[in-house]
Amino acid sequence: MKQKESAPTMKDVAREAGVALGTVSKVFNSIPVGEDYRKRVEEAARRLGYQVNSYARGLKTNRTCSAALILPDITNPFFSALAQGVCSALAARGYRTILSITAYDQSAEQRCIQMVQQNKVDGIIGLTYNPELEIDPRLPYVSIDRTFSYSVPCVASDNFGGGQLAAEKLLELGCTRPLFLRIGSRVSGESDKRGDGFESVFRQRGMECAALRLSDEDGLAPVRDFLAGHMDGGRLAFDGIFCVNDALAVHVRNFLAELGLRVPEDVQLIGFDGLRHFATGDFYCSTIVQPVGQLAETSVDMLLREDRSNLPRLVCLPVAYAPGGTTKE
Amino acid sequence: MKQKESAPTMKDVAREAGVALGTVSKVFNSIPVGEDYRKRVEEAARRLGYQVNSYARGLKTNRTCSAALILPDITNPFFSALAQGVCSALAARGYRTILSITAYDQSAEQRCIQMVQQNKVDGIIGLTYNPELEIDPRLPYVSIDRTFSYSVPCVASDNFGGGQLAAEKLLELGCTRPLFLRIGSRVSGESDKRGDGFESVFRQRGMECAALRLSDEDGLAPVRDFLAGHMDGGRLAFDGIFCVNDALAVHVRNFLAELGLRVPEDVQLIGFDGLRHFATGDFYCSTIVQPVGQLAETSVDMLLREDRSNLPRLVCLPVAYAPGGTTKE
Repeated sequence: MKQKESAPTMKDVAREAGVALGTVSKVFNSIPVGEDYRKRVEEAARRLGYQVNSYARGLKTNRTCSAALILPDITNPFFSALAQGVCSALAARGYRTILSITAYDQSAEQRCIQMVQQNKVDGIIGLTYNPELEIDPRLPYVSIDRTFSYSVPCVASDNFGGGQLAAEKLLELGCTRPLFLRIGSRVSGESDKRGDGFESVFRQRGMECAALRLSDEDGLAPVRDFLAGHMDGGRLAFDGIFCVNDALAVHVRNFLAELGLRVPEDVQLIGFDGLRHFATGDFYCSTIVQPVGQLAETSVDMLLREDRSNLPRLVCLPVAYAPGGTTKE
Repeated sequence: MKQKESAPTMKDVAREAGVALGTVSKVFNSIPVGEDYRKRVEEAARRLGYQVNSYARGLKTNRTCSAALILPDITNPFFSALAQGVCSALAARGYRTILSITAYDQSAEQRCIQMVQQNKVDGIIGLTYNPELEIDPRLPYVSIDRTFSYSVPCVASDNFGGGQLAAEKLLELGCTRPLFLRIGSRVSGESDKRGDGFESVFRQRGMECAALRLSDEDGLAPVRDFLAGHMDGGRLAFDGIFCVNDALAVHVRNFLAELGLRVPEDVQLIGFDGLRHFATGDFYCSTIVQPVGQLAETSVDMLLREDRSNLPRLVCLPVAYAPGGTTKE
C-alpha cells in the first residue's frame, strides 16, 4: 500500500509537528494525548493539507481496528500490568482491546479463540496454557511466554538469561550452596528456561546446584517440607535460593523465618517478575525484573506489523536484576 | 420480545438440564463452562428441539453483544479485581468486554466515551473522575462509585455504612480518640461518604473526631507531619485511625512505626477496600471489605436489563469488616 508522492502522509505530519508518528496516529484516532500535542498535530495536518479521512485505517475496509487479548487472570499483578500495557499500546495505534479471561482453563482458551475469530478481530495476543491450541494461521496471533509452532510468533522475557543473571548475582554475593525452586503449570512454557539458565551457570563452573520442581497441584507444603528436611544443626543446606517467581519467593521467605533463618544474613533469596507493592511501590524481594511495558509494546508491534511474513519465532526481551531486601545487595 | 408458546425457550432448556439460565446462555455463546454442564445443556436442547440459532442475541439484530469497560488504571488491585469481575459477568451473558484505560485523565475519559459510542457498543460501565462527563442518554451507561444525574445509574459499595462500621468497630475495641485520614481525587465521589459515615457515629455520641482530608496532589508528607505534630511525650493524640483506603493505611502503619508507636497496641488502624497480598492472600491491614464481585455483577445486570426505565439512581452494596492485624481483633 503506497501513498501517492503528492499526498502528505502521517509521517509528513509527524515531521511537520515535531512529534512521534504514534502521536499523530493517536490524534487521528481520538486517542488521548496531551492538549499541546493534539494542537500541534492538528495544525501541522492543516498546514500540509493532510486529509484526516484518508489515514491508513480507512483505506483497509476489512479492518475492525480491534484486537483480542486473552489472559488467564488479571488479578495477578504481572498480568494486570501486561493487560494495561497491551491495552494502552493498542489504543495508541487506534485499536480497541477486547479482553478475555480464561481462568487457566485450556478448553476455555480454545473456545475463546474460536469466539474471537467469529467476531472478526484483526488479531489476537494470547497468554495461554493450552499446548495444543489450534490457531487459524490466517489470523494474526502473537503468543506471550509460550511457543507453539513456526507460524505463531512468541514474545517473552529473556528467561534463560534471567536465570543466569540470578546465578551470577548469588555467586557475586558469596553464595556457594545454590537451590532452584519452581512451582508452576504442568504445561511447559518459556518460564521453564529460568531454572535451566540458573543451573547452567553452576554446571559450567563445576558446582553442584540443587533443584525442586513442582506443579501447581502440589501446593506449597512440599516446599516447606523440603526446606525443613535440609536443616542440620540450625543451618540450611543452601545459602542462595532462586525462586521461579516473586510469589514463591514471598512464601519461601516466610518458611525460612519459621525455620529461624535470617534473610539475607543466612540465606539469600531472588525471585523473578519484579512485582511491586501496590501501595509503597517497593519490590517484594530481590528479583529479576521482567520488562512488562516492552513485552506489551513488542506484542502489539508484531501483531499489527504490515508485513508479517518474516516475523521471528521468539523475541526475548532483556531483564534486569533489582535488589529488594532479600539479598546482601 | 415474546417467544411463541410452542417454541422452547432458554429457560425451558435450563429447567430440563437442571442448570442455571446463565449456564445455558454460556453454552450457546461458546463461553467456557465445565464439560459436564456443557453436555447437559446440549442434550437438554436436543431433547426439547431447541433451536440454538434462535437465542435472544440473534433476534435483536441491532445488538453488537459488546460492552465497554472504562477504568482509570488496572494495576491497582481493586480495579483489576473489578475488571476481572465485569469481564467474567459480561462473558457469562454472551458479551465481549472492550477495555479502555484512561489514566485518570478527565478529557481522556470524555474522548473514550465518544469513541466507544462511535463503535456502537451496547453499553458502557465506567469508573471515571470527570464530574462533567457528557453521556448520551440513549446509550446504556452504568457508573461505578460516582453519581452523575438521574439518567445515569450508579453502583457503589455502601461507603457511608462502611465508615459507620469502622467507627463502631474502633469503639468496640476501646478507642476513644478517633481520627479520619483521607487522600484522594479532588473530584467528589461516593467514597467521600466513608469519612461522613465515620464521623457521624462519634457526633451522635457527642464525641470529638479529628479528620484530615487531602487531595492526591498533596502527597503523603502532610500526613506524616500531621501525625508527628500530634505526638506528646511518646503518645499520639489518637488511638483509633480510619483511613479512606488500604493503600493509605499501609503508609500510615509505616509512619506510626517511625514514631515508635506499636500497632495495634498503641494505635488501632482500619483501612477500606479489602485488598489482599498477591502471594499469600492475607489482608494488608484490618479493613472494610468492598464486595468487588457483587459490584461487577450488579453493574452488568443493570447495564443489560431489558427494561432500563426504572433503574435506581444509586445501588449501595453491603461491606464487611475483616481483621487484618492492625486492630486488637
